[in-house]
Amino acid sequence: MSISMYQASVPVFQQMLASLDAILVKTQCHLEARKIDQQAILQARLFPDMFAFTRQVQIACDFAKGCTARLAGLEVPVFEDNEASLEELRARIAKTLAFIASVPASSIEGSEERDIHVGSGERARQFKGQQYLLHYVLPHFYFHNTTSYAILRHNGVEIGKKDFIGNF
Amino acid sequence: MSISMYQASVPVFQQMLASLDAILVKTQCHLEARKIDQQAILQARLFPDMFAFTRQVQIACDFAKGCTARLAGLEVPVFEDNEASLEELRARIAKTLAFIASVPASSIEGSEERDIHVGSGERARQFKGQQYLLHYVLPHFYFHNTTSYAILRHNGVEIGKKDFIGNF
Repeated sequence: MSISMYQASVPVFQQMLASLDAILVKTQCHLEARKIDQQAILQARLFPDMFAFTRQVQIACDFAKGCTARLAGLEVPVFEDNEASLEELRARIAKTLAFIASVPASSIEGSEERDIHVGSGERARQFKGQQYLLHYVLPHFYFHNTTSYAILRHNGVEIGKKDFIGNF
Repeated sequence: MSISMYQASVPVFQQMLASLDAILVKTQCHLEARKIDQQAILQARLFPDMFAFTRQVQIACDFAKGCTARLAGLEVPVFEDNEASLEELRARIAKTLAFIASVPASSIEGSEERDIHVGSGERARQFKGQQYLLHYVLPHFYFHNTTSYAILRHNGVEIGKKDFIGNF
């Protein structure tokens, strides 16, 4: 009995990305009901040198995608960062969910000691699989998920922590 | 080879609470240099019906403390929610770190299927240990850590994501 690398990664990404998608739907409804331009949210940020909402959602997806691919020893799929609407951000989440669902659990199991290389040049980092997942990817993944949520709350979108946690 | 319940919990809490503590030190320096009253941060929130900074830090500590105790089958230590300064919040983090360090890894190992009861009355929830840790505690724990960070960034404290991730 123990936690497998698959259990600690893909189902967690699925829970949180599904909840992020549901939050985007609520955000669409909120904006439509008030005739607010989506750009007001897409370009919102909590401080001038922090990433805007669109980028936060893109990066949350990228940590799920990158981690799943690297743990499985696959090339990381490249998504263009060109989303310009909530619908397009939902499509990116859907693409991410489709990719991570396509990776067989068996290719991730046993990746605890796999060598993981991230970044390049001066920003290159090396990890073992378990360290990469628990101490690097999950903090970053949750950071961008929570910051996306925080930007929406700060802008008055009516969502709550239940929406953030989602269903599992 | 696999991830143990201990590895997926206590060392993660230690990383993130140590980084939160270091962030509080930077916040103290930031406020002192500018002669800003700590209350401006302690009572700051991102939206009127969200918790203020002090409460965010308290809850982050409580998820680490509660999870560690419950997985180990121990009574959850009760901390009064009476912190009124950054120094006192740092003391709460220190108390939390001392408690979770005092719990032997062996008492948490093997808790994947342990029955966990949280809350009471209508808010009572039941989990198995692994589900509780991966799908409930960690999302909540990271939520309050990130929201604490977001409140500081929103108020101009000069910290970055490296401070949030910390050392591991």
